[in-house]
Amino acid sequence: MNAHSITMLGTGLIGDFYTSTLHGQRGRDLVRVVYSRSEARGEAFRDRWGIPESTTDMAAAVNHPDTDVVVVGLPNFLHEEAVALVAQAGKAVLCTKPLGRSAQEARLMLDTVETAGVFAGYLEDLCYTPKTLKAVRSVEAGAIGEVTWVRSREAHPGPHSAWFWDGRLTGGGAIVDLGCHCIEIIRTFVGKGNRPVEVMCHTDTLVHPIADEDNAVALIRFESGALGQFEVSWTFRGGMDLRDEVAGTGGTIWLNHFLRTGFEMFSAGIGGGYVAEKAETSAGWLFPVGDEVTELGYVDMFSDMFRALDEGTQPRETFYDGYVVNAIMDACYRSAKSRAWEPVELVGWRAPTTPRIESAPETFDGQVVIKREVMPDGRTKLILKDPVSGDFSDRLVAGS
Amino acid sequence: MNAHSITMLGTGLIGDFYTSTLHGQRGRDLVRVVYSRSEARGEAFRDRWGIPESTTDMAAAVNHPDTDVVVVGLPNFLHEEAVALVAQAGKAVLCTKPLGRSAQEARLMLDTVETAGVFAGYLEDLCYTPKTLKAVRSVEAGAIGEVTWVRSREAHPGPHSAWFWDGRLTGGGAIVDLGCHCIEIIRTFVGKGNRPVEVMCHTDTLVHPIADEDNAVALIRFESGALGQFEVSWTFRGGMDLRDEVAGTGGTIWLNHFLRTGFEMFSAGIGGGYVAEKAETSAGWLFPVGDEVTELGYVDMFSDMFRALDEGTQPRETFYDGYVVNAIMDACYRSAKSRAWEPVELVGWRAPTTPRIESAPETFDGQVVIKREVMPDGRTKLILKDPVSGDFSDRLVAGS
Amino acid sequence: MNAHSITMLGTGLIGDFYTSTLHGQRGRDLVRVVYSRSEARGEAFRDRWGIPESTTDMAAAVNHPDTDVVVVGLPNFLHEEAVALVAQAGKAVLCTKPLGRSAQEARLMLDTVETAGVFAGYLEDLCYTPKTLKAVRSVEAGAIGEVTWVRSREAHPGPHSAWFWDGRLTGGGAIVDLGCHCIEIIRTFVGKGNRPVEVMCHTDTLVHPIADEDNAVALIRFESGALGQFEVSWTFRGGMDLRDEVAGTGGTIWLNHFLRTGFEMFSAGIGGGYVAEKAETSAGWLFPVGDEVTELGYVDMFSDMFRALDEGTQPRETFYDGYVVNAIMDACYRSAKSRAWEPVELVGWRAPTTPRIESAPETFDGQVVIKREVMPDGRTKLILKDPVSGDFSDRLVAGS
Amino acid sequence: MNAHSITMLGTGLIGDFYTSTLHGQRGRDLVRVVYSRSEARGEAFRDRWGIPESTTDMAAAVNHPDTDVVVVGLPNFLHEEAVALVAQAGKAVLCTKPLGRSAQEARLMLDTVETAGVFAGYLEDLCYTPKTLKAVRSVEAGAIGEVTWVRSREAHPGPHSAWFWDGRLTGGGAIVDLGCHCIEIIRTFVGKGNRPVEVMCHTDTLVHPIADEDNAVALIRFESGALGQFEVSWTFRGGMDLRDEVAGTGGTIWLNHFLRTGFEMFSAGIGGGYVAEKAETSAGWLFPVGDEVTELGYVDMFSDMFRALDEGTQPRETFYDGYVVNAIMDACYRSAKSRAWEPVELVGWRAPTTPRIESAPETFDGQVVIKREVMPDGRTKLILKDPVSGDFSDRLVAGS
Repeated sequence: MNAHSITMLGTGLIGDFYTSTLHGQRGRDLVRVVYSRSEARGEAFRDRWGIPESTTDMAAAVNHPDTDVVVVGLPNFLHEEAVALVAQAGKAVLCTKPLGRSAQEARLMLDTVETAGVFAGYLEDLCYTPKTLKAVRSVEAGAIGEVTWVRSREAHPGPHSAWFWDGRLTGGGAIVDLGCHCIEIIRTFVGKGNRPVEVMCHTDTLVHPIADEDNAVALIRFESGALGQFEVSWTFRGGMDLRDEVAGTGGTIWLNHFLRTGFEMFSAGIGGGYVAEKAETSAGWLFPVGDEVTELGYVDMFSDMFRALDEGTQPRETFYDGYVVNAIMDACYRSAKSRAWEPVELVGWRAPTTPRIESAPETFDGQVVIKREVMPDGRTKLILKDPVSGDFSDRLVAGS
Repeated sequence: MNAHSITMLGTGLIGDFYTSTLHGQRGRDLVRVVYSRSEARGEAFRDRWGIPESTTDMAAAVNHPDTDVVVVGLPNFLHEEAVALVAQAGKAVLCTKPLGRSAQEARLMLDTVETAGVFAGYLEDLCYTPKTLKAVRSVEAGAIGEVTWVRSREAHPGPHSAWFWDGRLTGGGAIVDLGCHCIEIIRTFVGKGNRPVEVMCHTDTLVHPIADEDNAVALIRFESGALGQFEVSWTFRGGMDLRDEVAGTGGTIWLNHFLRTGFEMFSAGIGGGYVAEKAETSAGWLFPVGDEVTELGYVDMFSDMFRALDEGTQPRETFYDGYVVNAIMDACYRSAKSRAWEPVELVGWRAPTTPRIESAPETFDGQVVIKREVMPDGRTKLILKDPVSGDFSDRLVAGS
Repeated sequence: MNAHSITMLGTGLIGDFYTSTLHGQRGRDLVRVVYSRSEARGEAFRDRWGIPESTTDMAAAVNHPDTDVVVVGLPNFLHEEAVALVAQAGKAVLCTKPLGRSAQEARLMLDTVETAGVFAGYLEDLCYTPKTLKAVRSVEAGAIGEVTWVRSREAHPGPHSAWFWDGRLTGGGAIVDLGCHCIEIIRTFVGKGNRPVEVMCHTDTLVHPIADEDNAVALIRFESGALGQFEVSWTFRGGMDLRDEVAGTGGTIWLNHFLRTGFEMFSAGIGGGYVAEKAETSAGWLFPVGDEVTELGYVDMFSDMFRALDEGTQPRETFYDGYVVNAIMDACYRSAKSRAWEPVELVGWRAPTTPRIESAPETFDGQVVIKREVMPDGRTKLILKDPVSGDFSDRLVAGS
Repeated sequence: MNAHSITMLGTGLIGDFYTSTLHGQRGRDLVRVVYSRSEARGEAFRDRWGIPESTTDMAAAVNHPDTDVVVVGLPNFLHEEAVALVAQAGKAVLCTKPLGRSAQEARLMLDTVETAGVFAGYLEDLCYTPKTLKAVRSVEAGAIGEVTWVRSREAHPGPHSAWFWDGRLTGGGAIVDLGCHCIEIIRTFVGKGNRPVEVMCHTDTLVHPIADEDNAVALIRFESGALGQFEVSWTFRGGMDLRDEVAGTGGTIWLNHFLRTGFEMFSAGIGGGYVAEKAETSAGWLFPVGDEVTELGYVDMFSDMFRALDEGTQPRETFYDGYVVNAIMDACYRSAKSRAWEPVELVGWRAPTTPRIESAPETFDGQVVIKREVMPDGRTKLILKDPVSGDFSDRLVAGS
């Protein structure tokens, strides 16, 4: 393992999360210089995290002689410019989510880093939560059979910074902000090689007086037949709702990353202080998260990025993944407008074909077995279908 | 309160649930005669529940001189015939869900009872669970503001009886079996007078070798802008998943009716016995429900039905509601086929217009307030939108 | 089933719960007359529940010619007097918890009803919650093996009425108010025939300026070796904490009766209204209970009482049980003072001897097997003890 | 931050957890040499974790010229010898829990490191779980008022290695294995400067054929009046139960570290593999923990140890803390034998006096306010006590 020296671009909430992760615990990789458009914010950030230097010159930060990795933690509309600068500098680049404001922009960035031959990682933290990583290992080990359906939900009362609300700067509303997480979580569970075929999406602006969606629900149909479903909202009340559900032919997984993680507190409202990201109150029943940067995946994300960089391999989340996510989001916006299923348009799908979810019906006495149930008396009840007439019948048989 | 004497049509699982409810606790209404197509099943049912008579003659059961109420607990394809018989007999009729196999069939039943002038109730138990009833009172009292989104989910490994799997007898697959519950739960939360406008539905047959859907997801758009979302499955693993979520402009409600209700048991698999409806196992971690007939709404459902009958009013769930549910399910099947939003076709919508969910943006200093956040230092951060330029900005102000 | 006509003594919170239960749903048993010390409260109660008559004359209420059952819902210091009146009247008597302020007073009541030969039931609702009843059936069926430990906890911010706080009127503090529930829940799980041998109890008055305990923890050792543990508090913050845990040699049961029952609501504090017994707030995250009279056991309790009365049998909870509970509470108070284990003094234990929890150690190759564990590779790891040297060792063997 | 080079003594489960933590993520501190009594186990461990060297010579490992920190991960009976060796070598020593088999042994170790002037840390991981650390910050910020009661519970089906079961080698049974965690968690919440005054403990051997306790419950009374309560068991069924509850005058905290942390999985038992420490099964409903070394506190524990070492300060958990824990466990064993409260005997209490939990009763109109309740109509109900007569009364007043 090498120790890396980092240029941090951006001093917003995400910059704090990233630096808090890198400088937390016993990490060997440290931020060497931070860039902010505002001198004051840059200096405050520098002092907050014990960073040697801050600057308002992005190119200088990127080309700083002592750093080998650049983290792009800027608003969406600045990603492409920043990534181009880093590629030119020949350094490793790690870019926050979403990669672009559109698939076109993301594709441009993908091409940029691939042409330059620099290491590039897509900072999709929620695919790295410890729960997700362990759940994915279980899925890959076959513990729930073949995945048939994944629901990923992210909802809270809306982002903290003004630029998030301006679709011109971000590329959209709640989908671009939150849906990018959900889409990649879904892909992680159905399999990254499982091609997203088409999308159906409904959006609405229900509460906030903005031009973009503050609510959206979408379905994503994958090549295997698996169905992805995401729900995103900037109008949720009660904190931050971050849940995933995975259904398989042989099992089920439910993950709750925020409001119900085994930490419950009631406070009469005395004392006080920071409870958790997006918490609405500091009185009554509160549901803090133990260590947010671990639970939200930042720790394992950076470990994977630097491990891949050190080993000359690809990280779990690449710019190509970011591009696929943007392509799915583009299809969502097209679908919300056309009110129809829209194909996911991908230039160059980088995986082989995924077969349909397997269904190998058992037969019994010339009939198709629809279901088996063990009865209280120990016998088994079979529900059978006659393959000729299509009629169904029950049959009780001994044993299980 | 009068004591009612009941004809029970049907001796399947639902007949057991109904009679267990009626004959449980200290109820005053008793089953007087039970009808089954099978003499043996009728007699077993009669003995199990201490019912005076059983018969294989449906007309005789309906016209039994000592009963004033007939409960239809038969397979779907027999509802219309049974309801017609009861209407002819001039008795009150309570029909299990779904009302019909299609809106057309349901409409016929609705017309039949209205023409005959008999009392008719739609036995949609899940709208009567104690949690649902209390949650609805909270919603009606305004505790969560205006409802923007309702998710209702019902999933289990598939029904227990053969006829459920035969779409010719039922009208479909998981939607007709489970979606009818979800739809009416959604309507209950968004308001029964809130017209369901259109539907988008995706169905698939993923696991069981049958002709109908074993999985479906649907969106229902209501006149107010509220969005209903249901997920039904006959392929869920782990028991019976019965959850509802309601989002409002001022709050959130989460209901869990089955697997996580405050009753958790680990058993090494010794001893044994019935745990809960649709439980898959009797070893390991189990999540029984205390009193299923109460928790699933049967108790409050029959109380409401008989109260309405006694008072000459309408119950919460009428044949008209059953008809609306069937109309929404018809639209779901059309949408699954057309792969597009389909209008909900209703003959005679019986409610006035529902206004759009209200959004009354606050202004501050000539700017539109997008969001308010109380900061750790007690100040309030406003996110503002310039109504002319459309630009967004942050502003910190004193106080909350 | 006969329909019973009831005299209700008392119009406090418990009288409301009882009458709400009896007059709820489709019950056949109705309150005919209510007694209150206050004319105004009696009339309000009468009107609230549609009761024909109210009176301030307790003897007249008890002897009312139309009633056959008297429910004692009065403060503790009036139980003995009321029970004596009912016994004299030769009617069935159902008395709220605790039976007496001391074992001596409870014993007097027990003797009174037994001498008079009247039916007597002890209204210990929490032993009748649907979860408890089902859990007890599982325990009795052997699903968790032999019970080794039961924890019962009841805690809230303190009672609603003034008299509860006056130990002269009640017999003590939180133990007499809440511990009586816990003790009987514990007895129900370890077995009513399992003699409570001795008690160790710690009490303190931590928050409220009163003479009696507002916090207590106690251990109860039973004849089988099973350990009961109760925790009661009038200083809990966050609502009403009502949980039981049962450990067995072959399983575990966790029951949560109030704050986490699958009903979760966040409200911005708009709208409002009654949420649940002992709730502290109507904003933020709230955890209502669906149907309190069912969930707290009142419905099943009255069903059992009237069923037993109709059938001439004993209800689950008798005056003898109430007496045993008082005897255990007396031992708790003695122990809190002596700071030592104190014997439970019972005049006339009405059950045979209970054997010690069975431990039948398996042997392997002449060694005692302490534990078996299945390893990831499918082999089994045995932890063995040499019966001679007392030395322990690990051994890996094939198979499970 | 310096990078440390570590000697690891011991290759059991705890050695794996420690090394997995140190070598996980991007840590800068690495194990340089590992000692095991068994050459084979040492080599396997070395290879498993990529450690340069293994040895069977403990002194050589301790005195290895390249290491500056020694981690003692040996069975209890070897701690004293190992610590003495490290002190002699003048290196920093980090010793696993419990510190000694008795207070006397722990005191000896404390004196040894203090005399030698070496840095010494007590590896009590469960006081470092992210949930605990955040909860403690809330408590210290006053969010739940003054702590009145802490329950800490650790229970599982028994340890994995033979030596744990031999009280001669460990100093006892479940108390020495698990109670040491609970005691220090309790101390952390009531305040490390809050002197443990006396202890009441009940032990039993209910299931396993061993000489020491497999179950224990204990109460610890602190100088402030706060009550600690721990429950430990080697007979729990269902996995590992690791929960803490904290009650304060102004709030409540519930922590669940293992079985209910927002990760729920049902598996039909296909696939398979490691689920979680002490899991009993790999089928049915399973409750894995995301990242065990983080969730169980190992990550933050080592960070704190090395930070303190680097900064020349004390870690959160010192050998003195380990000594206090042993002293409390000694009192538990004395109490279990004497069946009475036993004083905690501490040589040299290193903190000032802690005042009694404050109770400052409010008065109203010359009466003592016992409780305030906001009524549904907005008025406040006061429960008042007359300071002269001791009588209680209710009073309704306007406002809240």
